[in-house]
Amino acid sequence: MTHYKKLEKKFDRIGKLRHLLSIVGWDEQVNMPQDSGESRAEAMAEGYLMIQELQLDAELQDLIQEAGEEARLNKLTLEQGANLKLIQKKMKDAKAVPSQLNHALTLAVMKCQHAWRDLRRDNDWKSFLPLFEPVVSLTKEAASARAEAFGLTPYNALLDQYQSGLDSDFIDRVFNGIKTWHPDLLDKARARQATILQPSGSFSIASQKNLGLEVMNALGFDFKRGRLDVSHHPFCGGVSSDVRMTTRYSEDDFTQSLMGIIHETGHGLYELGLPKEWEFQPAGHAAGMMLHESQSLLYEMQVGRSLPFLKFLSPMVKKHFGSDPALETDNLQKIYQRVEPGLIRVDADEVSYPAHVILRYEIEKQLIEGSIATADIPLLWDEKMKTYLGLDTTGNYKDGCMQDIHWPGGSFGYFPCYTLGAMLAAQWFRALKQDHDLLDTAIESGDFTWISSWLNKHIWSKGSVEHPLDLIKNATGEALTDRHYKLHLERRYLS
Amino acid sequence: MTHYKKLEKKFDRIGKLRHLLSIVGWDEQVNMPQDSGESRAEAMAEGYLMIQELQLDAELQDLIQEAGEEARLNKLTLEQGANLKLIQKKMKDAKAVPSQLNHALTLAVMKCQHAWRDLRRDNDWKSFLPLFEPVVSLTKEAASARAEAFGLTPYNALLDQYQSGLDSDFIDRVFNGIKTWHPDLLDKARARQATILQPSGSFSIASQKNLGLEVMNALGFDFKRGRLDVSHHPFCGGVSSDVRMTTRYSEDDFTQSLMGIIHETGHGLYELGLPKEWEFQPAGHAAGMMLHESQSLLYEMQVGRSLPFLKFLSPMVKKHFGSDPALETDNLQKIYQRVEPGLIRVDADEVSYPAHVILRYEIEKQLIEGSIATADIPLLWDEKMKTYLGLDTTGNYKDGCMQDIHWPGGSFGYFPCYTLGAMLAAQWFRALKQDHDLLDTAIESGDFTWISSWLNKHIWSKGSVEHPLDLIKNATGEALTDRHYKLHLERRYLS
Repeated sequence: MTHYKKLEKKFDRIGKLRHLLSIVGWDEQVNMPQDSGESRAEAMAEGYLMIQELQLDAELQDLIQEAGEEARLNKLTLEQGANLKLIQKKMKDAKAVPSQLNHALTLAVMKCQHAWRDLRRDNDWKSFLPLFEPVVSLTKEAASARAEAFGLTPYNALLDQYQSGLDSDFIDRVFNGIKTWHPDLLDKARARQATILQPSGSFSIASQKNLGLEVMNALGFDFKRGRLDVSHHPFCGGVSSDVRMTTRYSEDDFTQSLMGIIHETGHGLYELGLPKEWEFQPAGHAAGMMLHESQSLLYEMQVGRSLPFLKFLSPMVKKHFGSDPALETDNLQKIYQRVEPGLIRVDADEVSYPAHVILRYEIEKQLIEGSIATADIPLLWDEKMKTYLGLDTTGNYKDGCMQDIHWPGGSFGYFPCYTLGAMLAAQWFRALKQDHDLLDTAIESGDFTWISSWLNKHIWSKGSVEHPLDLIKNATGEALTDRHYKLHLERRYLS
Repeated sequence: MTHYKKLEKKFDRIGKLRHLLSIVGWDEQVNMPQDSGESRAEAMAEGYLMIQELQLDAELQDLIQEAGEEARLNKLTLEQGANLKLIQKKMKDAKAVPSQLNHALTLAVMKCQHAWRDLRRDNDWKSFLPLFEPVVSLTKEAASARAEAFGLTPYNALLDQYQSGLDSDFIDRVFNGIKTWHPDLLDKARARQATILQPSGSFSIASQKNLGLEVMNALGFDFKRGRLDVSHHPFCGGVSSDVRMTTRYSEDDFTQSLMGIIHETGHGLYELGLPKEWEFQPAGHAAGMMLHESQSLLYEMQVGRSLPFLKFLSPMVKKHFGSDPALETDNLQKIYQRVEPGLIRVDADEVSYPAHVILRYEIEKQLIEGSIATADIPLLWDEKMKTYLGLDTTGNYKDGCMQDIHWPGGSFGYFPCYTLGAMLAAQWFRALKQDHDLLDTAIESGDFTWISSWLNKHIWSKGSVEHPLDLIKNATGEALTDRHYKLHLERRYLS
C-alpha cells in the first residue's frame, strides 16, 4: 500500500465520524425534543473535538509528508493529488487554531445562539450585545490565527473557510460594480409592478407536501437516497449518500415553502451528484458554499421563477389547490417576480436581495478588520439600509441586525456566498442555454434532465477535485463574472 | 483531580460516542432511505471500532490501575466504586475478543441479517443456512474468548452480555420449574376462552397515534425528552436524555399497536428515570436486559392487560373510535387476555409466551455448547413446538426457526430475558401492591404516579450502581423467583 493510500484510509475515519455528526445534526433540527439539547450538545462537541484530534494525529502528519513525496514523484492520480492537497489544507487548519480557542468559541456561540432566539423576539439588543461580543472577539482571534498560518488577511481567512478561491479585493470589486447599477435597476423594476392576486383559502400542509414531493421528483431528486422533512429553519443537511432536505409550511401561503423546496432541491441534487467513490474524503465534498448556493439559486432563480417553469408548475398547483385565477401562470409569475424591498433578507425578492448581502458584507468585513466595534453595528445597519433600500430600521433590531442566525452562530464570511452564488447561477444558466437551444421548451414540458446532466457533468461529479475558480472557467469558458447576473435581472425585470 | 476522576473524564468520550451512535441507529430504523444503508453501515461500524479502540487505550488502562488503588484506599463514593467496576469489566470485555474477530462477526451479521428479510419471506432455509453458519461459528468463537477471559461457560458469557448475574444453571432450574406447571395451566386457560367480539371498522393511523400519545402521557412519559415514531420493528432506542420509542400501525387492528406502545413506554420510562449525572458512564445505564424487559412487561402485562387498566382505557378508546360493544371493558379484557397458542412469538399471548422462549433458549444453548449443529435447528424446533404448544411447523421455516431477527443478528443469550423479565415484572408488581393497598383503584382512575415513583425509587434512579440481583432483593425482599409469576397467571387465567 502506498503512503498516500494509508493516508486516505486513515482519513476515512474522519469522513465517517462526520457522517455520524451530520445525521445527528439533522436530527437535532428536525426531531430532537426540547429538553434534550444539553446532552446532545455535549455529545456533538465531543465528536468535533475527536475530529480535530484525529487531524492532529502524529502518524497522519508523517503520512502526509510521505504522500507528498509520492506526489512529487508523480505516483498519484489527478484525484489523489487533489485530495492530498485538500487534506494538507485541513491539517494546516487544524493546527492553526488552538483547540482551547476553538472550544471557547464553540461555548460562546452556543450561549449566544441559544439566547438569540428569545432576545431577537424581544428586540433586546442591549442584552444581546454582551453575549455577542465574545463571539466576535473569539472569531477575530481565530481568524487571526488562521490568517497567520495561511498568509491571508483575517477576513479572507474566514471567507476561505466557506469558499476557497475568494478574497475581499475580488468581492469589493464585484459588489462595488453591482452598486453602480443596482439602485437604478431596483427603481425601474419597482415602477413596473402590476397588481397581484393573492391565492385565497387555506392550503393544507399535506397538499403542500405532496406538491413539493412532486416537484422534487420532477427535478430529479432521488428519494432512495434522501428525504424531505420539516424544520424551523429550512436547510439541506445529511450526507451525500443520504440527503436530508427540510422546509417549513404555512397554511396561509404555499408559495414560499414551494420555492423554498425548489431552492433546497438545488442543494440536494448537488450533494446526490458528488462522486460516490470519494464519499469519505475531502475530494468528494462540494467545492464550497458559493458553489453550493449557485446550485440552489440556479434551481430557484434561473429555473424556478422563470416563465417556462411557471407554465409547467401552474397545472400542478391547480391540481392540489383547485382552480383559482391566482394560480394561473401569469399571476404566479407576478408573485414569484414581485419586487418590493423589505427589512428581512430571507423574504427578499431577487432584485432587492444583493443589497441585503452587500450591507452585511461591508459591516462584517469592517468588524473583523477592527475598523468598527460590535456596538457600532446597529447605527451602520440603519445607515446602509436607508442608502441601499430606502428603509428605516432605527430601533428595530429584531428586523435589523439581529434578524439572521449567522452572526450569533459565529458565521462571518458566509453572506457573500449568497450573492456570488446568484451571479454564478446566472453564469451557469447562460452556459447551459448555449449548449441547449430548446432549454425553455424542455423546462415548460417538465423535462429537467438536460439541466441535471449538464450540472452533473460539469460540477457535481467533480467534487472538490478541481479548484473552484478553474471549475467555473472550464465549464463556462469564462472567469466568475457578474455580467450574466445583471443581464438576467434586466431581462427578467425590465424588459 | 483523582485518577478515578481522570478515568471518568476519559470514559465520557465513549459515552458521548455511544450517544451519537444510538441516535444514528434509531435514524437507520425510522428515517433512512432504502439505498443509504451501505454508507451508513460503514460509518456506524467505524464508530463502534473507535469505541473498542478507546477502551483499549493504554492511558485508560493505567488510569484503571491507579483508580483501583484509590478504591482500595476507600477514596471513592459508592457510585464511583460501582462505576469503576463496570469500567473494569468493559475493558476486560474489549480485550477478550480480538477486534478482527469482532469485525468478521459484524460483517457476517450484516450479510445474514440483510438476506434474512427476503429469505424468511420466501421460506428459504436452504439459502439462509450458509449465511447463518458463519454467524453461529463466529459467535461461538467470540463466546469462547469471552468465556476464557471471565471464567464462564461460553453460553454464560453470552448471557452475561445482556444481563449480568444470570447463568444457565439458574435458568435451567427456573425454566424446568415452569415446564412442570405450564402445560396444565395452558390447557386450563384455553378451556376457559369465551367468545370475543372483534372491533369492527378501519382505525385511522392518526387516531391510533393520538390514542397512543394520550396513554403515554397518562403513564408519565416525558415528551420533552422523548418521541414516538414508526418503524418496521417496534423498539425503544435513543439515549436516556432523548428516548426514541417506535411502534407500527395496522388500520385493521388498533389493539396490537396500542399494547405495543404500552410495552415500549415501560422501556422508555426506565431510560428517562436513569440518573442524569451518570449519563455518559456505565453506572448510568440500565441494569441489564432482563431488568429492562421487566419494566416493559410490568407496564404491558401487570398493568396494561389488567381489568383496572382496561376500565381506564375503554372510555379513551371509545373517544377515538366511537362506541362499539367490542370496545367495552369486558370485551377488551377478553381481547387482551385471550389465550390461543400460535406459531409467532411476538404475537403470542401471555400464557403461551414462555413456551416460545424456553424452546429458543434450549436450542441456542445446545447450539453454542456444540451439542447440536446449525443444520439441526429446524427438526429440533418442530419437535419442541409440538411438545410445548402442540403445533406443527414442519417445513414452515418462515413461521418457525426463521421468524426472529435475533439469531441472524448474532443475538444469542437474549431470549431468556423476556421470560425472566415477565417473572420479575410479577415480582415487582406484587411488591408494589404490598406498598400500596389502593393500587387497583389508582390504576382505574388513571393515576400511575404511585407506580412510576416506586419504580423510580427502587430501580430507575439506581442505574447500574447496585448489582442487579441485589437490586431485586433490596426492592422486593426476596431473590428473583417465578412464584409471583405463576400466581399472577393462575389468578388472571384460571380464577
